[in-house]
Amino acid sequence: MATGVKVYGPPDSTAVTRVLACLLEKDVEFQVISFNMFKGEHKNPDYLKIQPFGQVPAFEDENITLFESRAICRYVCEKHADKGNRGLYGTNPLVKASIDQWLEVEGHNFNPPSSSLIYQLVLAPMMKIEQDQEQIKQNEDKLAKVLDVYDKWLGDNQFLAGDEFSLADLSHLPNTQYLVGAAEKAELFTSRKNVARWWGEISNRDSWKRATDYMQNSA
Amino acid sequence: MATGVKVYGPPDSTAVTRVLACLLEKDVEFQVISFNMFKGEHKNPDYLKIQPFGQVPAFEDENITLFESRAICRYVCEKHADKGNRGLYGTNPLVKASIDQWLEVEGHNFNPPSSSLIYQLVLAPMMKIEQDQEQIKQNEDKLAKVLDVYDKWLGDNQFLAGDEFSLADLSHLPNTQYLVGAAEKAELFTSRKNVARWWGEISNRDSWKRATDYMQNSA
Repeated sequence: MATGVKVYGPPDSTAVTRVLACLLEKDVEFQVISFNMFKGEHKNPDYLKIQPFGQVPAFEDENITLFESRAICRYVCEKHADKGNRGLYGTNPLVKASIDQWLEVEGHNFNPPSSSLIYQLVLAPMMKIEQDQEQIKQNEDKLAKVLDVYDKWLGDNQFLAGDEFSLADLSHLPNTQYLVGAAEKAELFTSRKNVARWWGEISNRDSWKRATDYMQNSA
Repeated sequence: MATGVKVYGPPDSTAVTRVLACLLEKDVEFQVISFNMFKGEHKNPDYLKIQPFGQVPAFEDENITLFESRAICRYVCEKHADKGNRGLYGTNPLVKASIDQWLEVEGHNFNPPSSSLIYQLVLAPMMKIEQDQEQIKQNEDKLAKVLDVYDKWLGDNQFLAGDEFSLADLSHLPNTQYLVGAAEKAELFTSRKNVARWWGEISNRDSWKRATDYMQNSA
């Protein structure tokens, strides 16, 4: 019988993969309860009881039901502070504040343009929806400006929140994986020296390789 | 001489007001270092050293420089756990997880359409930029759907993260203040029974009245 915490949603959805990557990094056992979003199964009444907005993922353990991937990751790190990668969410308040800062940057500056690009370049063709070239251009320009700032920052810092890999870096993995892969936008990352070095390091972690196995096998 | 932590940015910017409301709720002394964003002062090289994206606010105390309003609020609550409203960021891990969840909902579901509406309905006319009626319609529809979910949730819960006012509720105050005021979109809130009750309660707090004084006096 499957055991561990429950993660609801398809593992090829970026927000679901974010949570899986965190659980793998923290050595927390989990089971994935997947469903088909193309068939609208995330709008089923039973699912809406645990995620009222009908978005993915949702999370459940013996104590709580939660949604929003970055809130789930924070909770997993706090609850399992002594398991797996102990520094993933920092071990002192100043590092933690810096991780929170870069998690917010990921959520507000990096995620909107990168998610739009993934939608236009990967999902729209899959769903036979016409691509909006202006949206592609606008979001690529926005993302390029964000990555220019990252490149400068990562020239002075090994990882976003300092000297150690953290939840802030991890949170960028799912969207970047799509952009350098299926969306064929790798040059956004490889053309920027420090971003390229950073992406190489964070995507080579064992936890991320295992997370991408889940992504690929769910297609 | 002015004392306390430093908050950089104009207090009529919603993200700046979010931090001021948190500091007032926590009884933490602060000074505001304002500047004129219409003149592009948030892109000055000295400011970019503390906020590399050229956005507001930034924050500084004796230990750290930070940006991203929600990360600043989390840090203030953690550092000053025993000051002012002690429950603002929860006093146990499950409530804290729920506050984080609703802070993320605010950041990802509520903030984008409400910020677009504020831009189109308040800032564009102020800057003599033509309003985009399609953007207004689309974002009003998006926000209405989000508020429908809030209305149901707030029928079962006094505040977003449970029985107590928290950072999750507070984080909605600045945008909602503009929407019910200058943007003349109060009916989005007043037409929904539970949202109306919630807005009445959270906007009547003394800390918020003091925060709106800063907003108004900065114009």
